Amino acid sequence: MNNRNDVEIVLVGNELLMGERSDSHLHYLGRELLRNGVGVARSHTVSDAVDDIADVVGDRRSKARVVIVTGGLGPTPDDVTREGVAKALGVGLEFDEPSWDAIRRFFDERGRTATDVNRRQAMFPAGSEVLPNPLGTAPGFAVDSGGATVIVLPGPPVEVHHMFEAEVIPRIRAIFQREPVRVETFRTIGVGESNLRELFGKRLDGITNYRVSYLPSRFSVDIVLTERVGSSDRKGLDEEAARLERDLRDEFGNYFYERGERSLFHVVHDLLVSRRETLAVAESLTGGWISKRFTDVSGSSAYLLGDVVAYADETKVQLLGVQRDTLEQFGAVSEETCTEMAHGIRHRLGASYGLATTGIAGPTGGTAKKPVGLTYIGVSWDGGCLVKRQVYLGTRDDVRLRASHGVVWMLFDRLKSA
Amino acid sequence: MNNRNDVEIVLVGNELLMGERSDSHLHYLGRELLRNGVGVARSHTVSDAVDDIADVVGDRRSKARVVIVTGGLGPTPDDVTREGVAKALGVGLEFDEPSWDAIRRFFDERGRTATDVNRRQAMFPAGSEVLPNPLGTAPGFAVDSGGATVIVLPGPPVEVHHMFEAEVIPRIRAIFQREPVRVETFRTIGVGESNLRELFGKRLDGITNYRVSYLPSRFSVDIVLTERVGSSDRKGLDEEAARLERDLRDEFGNYFYERGERSLFHVVHDLLVSRRETLAVAESLTGGWISKRFTDVSGSSAYLLGDVVAYADETKVQLLGVQRDTLEQFGAVSEETCTEMAHGIRHRLGASYGLATTGIAGPTGGTAKKPVGLTYIGVSWDGGCLVKRQVYLGTRDDVRLRASHGVVWMLFDRLKSA
Repeated sequence: MNNRNDVEIVLVGNELLMGERSDSHLHYLGRELLRNGVGVARSHTVSDAVDDIADVVGDRRSKARVVIVTGGLGPTPDDVTREGVAKALGVGLEFDEPSWDAIRRFFDERGRTATDVNRRQAMFPAGSEVLPNPLGTAPGFAVDSGGATVIVLPGPPVEVHHMFEAEVIPRIRAIFQREPVRVETFRTIGVGESNLRELFGKRLDGITNYRVSYLPSRFSVDIVLTERVGSSDRKGLDEEAARLERDLRDEFGNYFYERGERSLFHVVHDLLVSRRETLAVAESLTGGWISKRFTDVSGSSAYLLGDVVAYADETKVQLLGVQRDTLEQFGAVSEETCTEMAHGIRHRLGASYGLATTGIAGPTGGTAKKPVGLTYIGVSWDGGCLVKRQVYLGTRDDVRLRASHGVVWMLFDRLKSA
Repeated sequence: MNNRNDVEIVLVGNELLMGERSDSHLHYLGRELLRNGVGVARSHTVSDAVDDIADVVGDRRSKARVVIVTGGLGPTPDDVTREGVAKALGVGLEFDEPSWDAIRRFFDERGRTATDVNRRQAMFPAGSEVLPNPLGTAPGFAVDSGGATVIVLPGPPVEVHHMFEAEVIPRIRAIFQREPVRVETFRTIGVGESNLRELFGKRLDGITNYRVSYLPSRFSVDIVLTERVGSSDRKGLDEEAARLERDLRDEFGNYFYERGERSLFHVVHDLLVSRRETLAVAESLTGGWISKRFTDVSGSSAYLLGDVVAYADETKVQLLGVQRDTLEQFGAVSEETCTEMAHGIRHRLGASYGLATTGIAGPTGGTAKKPVGLTYIGVSWDGGCLVKRQVYLGTRDDVRLRASHGVVWMLFDRLKSA
């Protein structure tokens, strides 16, 4: 049975099949398992029905070394994962006194009382090892059967993440004894996947120690290198990744902004912090998105002095010092207004750099001369200002996202060259 | 063969199993199919390997009436879904001249040239009906085999959504001839799932025409009613939903804000528009999130005059008119500062309402007296100001999300009662 799959996942929940909620577990589990050298071969989503769960778990336990099941451990009658797994393994459920004590303690500590309904959460398939869940009322369990280990976790992401690290990873390491797999991410912005393939594909085809994949999103493409199985030559891996980074920097410096996992906003955050420079932002169509993204990162108060979302013309005059004449003569969506916004916010707050966006996010509000998507983005600094005219395609959300990234990309360019 | 499952889904892509990307198709397909009265029984995620795809499609085609496959139709050698499906059905691939013409036209129109690599995208399993893809280069296909219809779509969401509406829905209606299923969503805020069950569970248990589910997110719980199969009594459905809405409004009015799909921000947006009132926002820890959420909705310029993200103390003084004394005596995170922020932004922009947030988002920056999560949220209006002190739990992201919703909930309360 050595040609079993490493791991298969079973996600339990009607809400996943009925389109009420998106799954986020597979993304998390796939990444974390891979980093421990273990691959997920398949994932299955099934309903909250004993027979469905029993069918899938029973089937996949003969194909995979480890089956990880999530969801359906709650106290309500809808939660039948424990029954389904017990049926798959052909065993009964047994009551576990220490788990029941832990559940009652969990309620006590929160000033509430566990009811008989919760007793079900202390029932486990015979032969299970209980996996404690300090963040919720549903303990998980692990049980060996027919050459496979079935590991069952509750549904809430915060509980899954905690239990995966504390309980699952040690078991995965003991079972597989694999080396971690090296994953290297190189992030580009402003160039589409097909352009990237044209301009840089030949170079990437030459990579031997890693599998190369392109991961496009709406404004960027990540190049992801995943260590090939058997490429355990650490030096070769190091050298090949370093060489690629150098080539990207040299030949692709306008588009390449990160080797690693940081967002463009995080990269610019780190640049500003290390240069001890400050930032002020004036947003129109992006509506606060730029500031929201910068402040996602802890420590942004070190450089972000403030942001003005100047949706109304009067606010542009009042808080940014845009001239009424400029608005009347050129309109709010114009190079002139964008320039005054970028300068205005920088001067008002005394910042090293000022950013500004103004445009038509749509879906309505466009004209023949100023179509939906028309956007001006600008950077002001001591000694100059650069404003670009763009016409972004896509939905309202796309236009705003692209404008947010576009202007931060301009700042990145400036910080790099300054 | 009448006890087949309605639909099963097969999602193809290494990137889904390796944790490089989250799937969004199941969420979309599950919801849209359900609205057409058709249920998704299972979903399977498999790698880009001919044998894996063939194994799953071959197996599930004998269990389900329709199998929908997405992904792996691109031009590269990694894209092997067409080969996998052909193998599952035991047929060969055939070249389709009209599809090849359409692919070349797609490239032509974009000033590019289709290469021989793209020819593979005009290959289909024998017996397929081609499903045109006006938004991309990969056509889909549908093929009947062994009592099932296998429908294959490309991967990019925008292409899937378009083709699903244009090509798949008509086929689903013809195959199943089902009535649409009624789904009713009732949204609450500020009350956890277990509290909601305690306070309102008995009432919800009495519902007969619908299946009731609770969908908690970080700041709200949706009550979702899904029509039970066989409850085709339209009048009973209408009445039961209307009665629940009335009861929620009467007994739960503080927490219940929407029957439908609108977000809290969208509900407040509509209230402000219909009342012809205006809004100004001053954000500290929420960093632009509130404004971003309001401006997600088209038409927000009708009421949103502006937003100031005043991260630095000096910005609070400069742009909001907070007194230096107040900041020195009480600190930036205080009831007093929050009050001055809310009043300040309202007066500066001449708005009907002013919102303000100030707090400690964490993970660092807390003290014994002012712990991480401590937040003041306030609403100012002509004639008064209400400020609440909250200690939000969770990550930086949780704290910011809760503060954003908390203050907008306060405004909702005010708009409802005013």
